[in-house]
Parts: sequence; C-alpha cells; structure tokens
Amino acid sequence: MATLPRKQLFDLPEGVIYLDGNSLGPLPKSVTARVGEVVTEEWGAQLIRGWNDAKWMEQPARVGDQVARLIGAPAGSVVMGDTLSIKVYQALASALEMRPDRKVVLSDSGNFPTDLYMAQGLLASLNQGHELKIVAPEEVAGAIDDRVAAVMLTEVDYRTGRLHDMKAITDAAHANGAVMIWDLAHSAGAIPVDLAGSNCEFAVGCTYKYLNGGPGAPAFIYVRPDIMGRVRPALSGWLGHDAPFAFDLDYRPAGNIERMRVGTPPVLQTSALEEALKVWEGLTMAEVRAASIRLSEKFIQEVEARCPDLTLASPRDPEARGSQVSFAFEHGYAAMQALVARGVIGDFRAPNIMRFGFTPLYLDDTDIVAAADILQDIMENRLWDDPAYKVANRVT
Amino acid sequence: MATLPRKQLFDLPEGVIYLDGNSLGPLPKSVTARVGEVVTEEWGAQLIRGWNDAKWMEQPARVGDQVARLIGAPAGSVVMGDTLSIKVYQALASALEMRPDRKVVLSDSGNFPTDLYMAQGLLASLNQGHELKIVAPEEVAGAIDDRVAAVMLTEVDYRTGRLHDMKAITDAAHANGAVMIWDLAHSAGAIPVDLAGSNCEFAVGCTYKYLNGGPGAPAFIYVRPDIMGRVRPALSGWLGHDAPFAFDLDYRPAGNIERMRVGTPPVLQTSALEEALKVWEGLTMAEVRAASIRLSEKFIQEVEARCPDLTLASPRDPEARGSQVSFAFEHGYAAMQALVARGVIGDFRAPNIMRFGFTPLYLDDTDIVAAADILQDIMENRLWDDPAYKVANRVT
Repeated sequence: MATLPRKQLFDLPEGVIYLDGNSLGPLPKSVTARVGEVVTEEWGAQLIRGWNDAKWMEQPARVGDQVARLIGAPAGSVVMGDTLSIKVYQALASALEMRPDRKVVLSDSGNFPTDLYMAQGLLASLNQGHELKIVAPEEVAGAIDDRVAAVMLTEVDYRTGRLHDMKAITDAAHANGAVMIWDLAHSAGAIPVDLAGSNCEFAVGCTYKYLNGGPGAPAFIYVRPDIMGRVRPALSGWLGHDAPFAFDLDYRPAGNIERMRVGTPPVLQTSALEEALKVWEGLTMAEVRAASIRLSEKFIQEVEARCPDLTLASPRDPEARGSQVSFAFEHGYAAMQALVARGVIGDFRAPNIMRFGFTPLYLDDTDIVAAADILQDIMENRLWDDPAYKVANRVT
Repeated sequence: MATLPRKQLFDLPEGVIYLDGNSLGPLPKSVTARVGEVVTEEWGAQLIRGWNDAKWMEQPARVGDQVARLIGAPAGSVVMGDTLSIKVYQALASALEMRPDRKVVLSDSGNFPTDLYMAQGLLASLNQGHELKIVAPEEVAGAIDDRVAAVMLTEVDYRTGRLHDMKAITDAAHANGAVMIWDLAHSAGAIPVDLAGSNCEFAVGCTYKYLNGGPGAPAFIYVRPDIMGRVRPALSGWLGHDAPFAFDLDYRPAGNIERMRVGTPPVLQTSALEEALKVWEGLTMAEVRAASIRLSEKFIQEVEARCPDLTLASPRDPEARGSQVSFAFEHGYAAMQALVARGVIGDFRAPNIMRFGFTPLYLDDTDIVAAADILQDIMENRLWDDPAYKVANRVT
C-alpha cells in the first residue's frame, strides 16, 4: 500500500470534492469502528481500569511518537494534548524564561491569529514590559536582533499558503540568541518537515487538519531533547508531574516530554487520531509532497485558464507554498458558498481569500478537473450572486 | 422518570459493582449511538460544514448551560472546554489581576494536587512575589486575611470526602477582600451546589466523574455574571475572541462567558458529554443527595460491622462529606486490588485510603450489601495478601 491516493481508506460523502482537508480532514473509515470500540469495550467495559488496561495513560506520548515520525522529530520529543492555542502558550512561556533579559517576541502578520492572541495574553499576564512585535512575513529574518527573546511563526501561512524557510529563519534566530518556536498547523501531514534538522527549540501543531484526527483532535508540542531538562512548564498540571500518583503537594516536572502534559487527556479524541494516523503507514512525506505539488499545479493551471476574475494569492513557485492554493476574489465569500452548494468544499478567509487544500491521500487529477469545471460554471454564470447558493461556511 | 436508581440508562458490565463514579463515571447507554452518529453523520458526512450545520461551534456554551443547571448557576455563566487544570489556571490568573496589590493565594492541603501545581506554575511565571499558602482544611477560614488575593479550594476533598462550607468560606473571603475560586470536581452531579447563592467569583470543574462524560471529557468554568466584563482572559485564544472569524491581529474578548473559551473545542468528547447529561432529566440534586446519603450511610454501617481493621477516614456526619466514603487501611492498595479483582471497583489514594463513590443514578441497596460482603471476605481471608488478586488500579 505505497501508492496515492488512498481514497478507499476514507469515508468521503458521495458527490463531494473535498478541498478543505487543510481545515478539517475527512473521516478515515476505520476510525468509526475504533471509536465505537473505545466507547463500549474500553470506557464501557473497563471503566476506570481503562487508564491501565487500555493504556489510556500512555496514549499522549505513544501518539506523539507517531506524529514525530511525520515531522522529522525523534521518538520521545513530542506529546499530545490540549489545543494548539494552549501549546503555543506553553512553548512561548518556556521560551521567555530561557531569555529573561530580553523583552521582544517577534512574529508576523501571516501567523494564525490565535498564536498572536495567546502571546498577547501571556505578555499581559507577565506584566514585565514584553512587547509582541508583528512584522510582514518577508521582513521576519531582517527583524531578528539581540532584543528578541523568541521568534514565533507559523511555517505555512493559513491564508496564502506561503512557506517560511524554517532552517534559515531558525539559524537567524539562533545567530541572534533568540529561541525559535514553529507552529506546524498547516505543515504536519502536508509537507516534509525536518524539525530535528532545523534545530528549533519548540514546535507545536494541530491534528484535525492534514492528520485527519477529527473535530477538536488534540494538539502536539515538540521540545528539542537537549533542552528538555531546562524547560519549566508554565502550565504545570498533574500529568506533567514526575510522579502524578504520589499526589505530592509540590510540582516536580517529569524528566522527559511528559512534562508538557497538563490535565486528563481526551481519550476519545486521541483514540480517533491514533487510528486516523494509520492511513500514513508505508508513506513518506516526500511522496505526499510530490503528489500535492502535482495536484496544486494542475489546479492553478486549470483555474487560471478558466476563471480570469480570480487572482492567485499563493506563491506561484510550488516550493514556496504549503499544500494549499488560494485565490483572491472580491465576491469570494459568496463564490465559496456556491461552490460548497455544488459539492466542492473549500473555505473562505476574510477579506477575500478562497482557499483550497490539496491532500493527495484522497484526491486525484479527476477531482481537480471536476472542481475547476464547477468553479468555471460559477464564475461564468455569476452563481455567486444567486440566492439559491447560500451555505454558511466559515470555520478554519 | 423521576425515580432512582436509573440503572437501565447505563451500560454497566455484568458482575461489577461500580463504586468509582467519583473517578470515571460509567457509560450512559445512549452515548454509544450518539458518538457513532457524530463520527459518521456529522464529521464524516458534513465535514467542515459540521461547525455550522451540526452546531459544533455553539456546543461549549450550550452544554455549559446544561451543567449550570446542576450547579446552581444561571444560563450564560458556564462554558465547557480544555481540562480542569487549564480552567484552574484561567480562574486564578484572572483573580490575581483583580487584586494586583495582594500577593497571597490561599489553598489547603486537601485540594487536588493539580490545582496547587497549576497555581505554582502561574505564580512562578508571574515572578511578582506571589506566595501559595497551603493550610490544613480546617484552618482555611481563619487564614483568610487582607493579604490574600484569592482563596482557591476544592469543595469536596478528593481523599476523604470532607465538605467545605462554600457559603461561609466565600463570605469570609469577601469580608477580607479576596476573590473566591471553587473547584467542583467532586461536587458537580454529586451534591447540590448553589453557586449563584455563594456569590463566589469563579468556579471550575470536570465532567468525567459524576457527570459521566467519559475519559477526558471537557472541563467547565463559571464566571459570576456581574464581573464578566472585568475578567481578562490570560489564555486568550481565538475562540474567546469577540469576532473569531474576523481574524484580527489583536485580541478583543467576547462580551460574555465565551471569553473563557480558548482553542478549537473537542467535539467528540463534548458530544459524548452532552448526551450523557440527558440521564439527569427530571431529577433534582436534592433527590440525588438524599439517595447518596442513604447509600453511603448504609455502606459505613455495613463495613464497620464487618471489617474492624478499616478505619473511617471520611467525616461521620453525612452533611459534612460529599458523595464518597473513604476508609484507611495499612494494606489499602492491595485490598483495593483484591476488591477490583472480585468486581467491586473503588480506588486507592496514597498513602492508605480506600475510596468508594456513591452515585445513586446506578447504585442501590443491594449493591451496597454485596460490596460489603465481598470486602468482608477479603479482610477476613486476608485476600489482600494473596498474589492472585493483583490488578493495577491507580488513576483518579
């Protein structure tokens, strides 16, 4: 099973071409039975014993190892839990303590807003004169100086798909003594990531997009192994304790990546994810990337040939973008509603971005051409202006 | 359907008497089908459209209202999400900002460790000279003075079941100008709580115990409505933003309880919980409490008559304890293993506490007597010393 696509592994609704796996991945077929089993055979039959007998307690690290494999991280360096927002907070709080003499957090205007919001919330709490400096994506490298405590970026821009040079920016951060945090929300399962090779200190990401973990699937955090012992968890919950079941009154962090755990893990969600990750068996990210580039190049070609009113908002060079393609269009919101009504599901990002994700696990050339056909029809016949095509569609 | 128990609503394994609903509630029967439906009909068929069409986005506040009803809170004052540890952090961080001139957080040694750990982590991050003062439970009221910024307590002691006087302690906190935070982990669904009447500023709790939401079910947070607008969320995630889908670069909190949301909510877990809460329809907490007291009184009576080596570690007055009964026994860990092996599931808390939860939704007098019979057999025949009865059992 080394070929792409693997449509047979997914439950895709009839008549839908799904170009929104960058927002919420579709349901892998085997997840349905697995979740049912966790509910009835584990929770139902084992009750509290499930924590041991069904190995729920080790699940966050066990699944973390599976994710690690897809992002170029060693075993034992990634753990699952919470939401991406929480993991951003953990990483940044720890990073700032590693550079107590510096007060600038550098990010860019292409970062997903929750990363910026979490930073704003943390800095306001610290009340120690920190500043969140937000520059344009292309200005990041030049803005790193010796005042910067941490550089915090999302590798792939959620709107345009523009890709940062992870290695070059991390090197620039380190050359200036700053700690590097990468958000891999639109990278994990989308493009090859060499986390270990980048040498960044922290990385975080979510698993409900390209990793198909389901709505609200847990996030992950990576900590570079050599600094693990120096990372103080700001969110020091009991399951990050060195001995959670000793019930000590004082916190003492676990010696390994488990210290980034916080509270009781979401077993149903993590089990869905664990099962969903099986669709990656026998695949390399290089294969996935090659197929993704082929699909996205074809889509751009087809759309530009048919829809002159749409303007490519993603980098034209496929090596400079992630696994999504965005087009700007004044009536993009309405056009996306019409597309969704016609079974082509992408999404819209304010103010005018129509966003299409390419996930070669379950898409092929036929889908691309069919989607372009429908888009052409909507544009040529101004269906975006037709009240019959109004479907709410708004979530990342 | 106003009578107790309601065993027919639960999937309880044959041959098990479940006295650990205070740790992980059992599976309500209808949850199995509901979770299956969310996986296949919502995630699978609706894909990204589920956020709107299946109303996933409103779920945290909608389910919050259901929980509010069980803890004496008004609609619109409770929202679901994250873990209890995270919610403790949110409440305490906000509380401390309401009393910037004060540096003491007061808690007690009966608090669940993660609450203390999260406070330690927050105070270390703030680095502003705060102190976490931990006193014995009976010393709390006397320890509240005008240096205390926040009093943070769990109403029901996780080891002994000892119950704090919520109203009296909250009044003492307020008389001294301190903010009050209650952790309702062992209260919600266990005992009547009059959150509005207590006038406390914040409350938090989990839903996988007496509310039967399943392993890793989301936590909740309550904010007293009149202070909502003054509460700055330290964990300022995008779903707490006033307009999450505007994707502004600056955080601006929602005007209502939604500001305490952080990241993308765990839809599968929250759906399981939402369905599980239906078992409470038509019940009052006063009925549940009366039945719980009857069961726990009977258990104490039966155990004390049969097992002289066990010492009651809970308050003898039922009005002074929650819905659990604990016995101290030197070989408690091994004795609990033997009990579990015999189908009576309670749990153990270091150093020597055998803990039994009474949940009248699915327990009756027959269960209590049968459990006492088996416990008697284990004690009289020293089965706790028998290698045949070793079953791992360790999680809250």
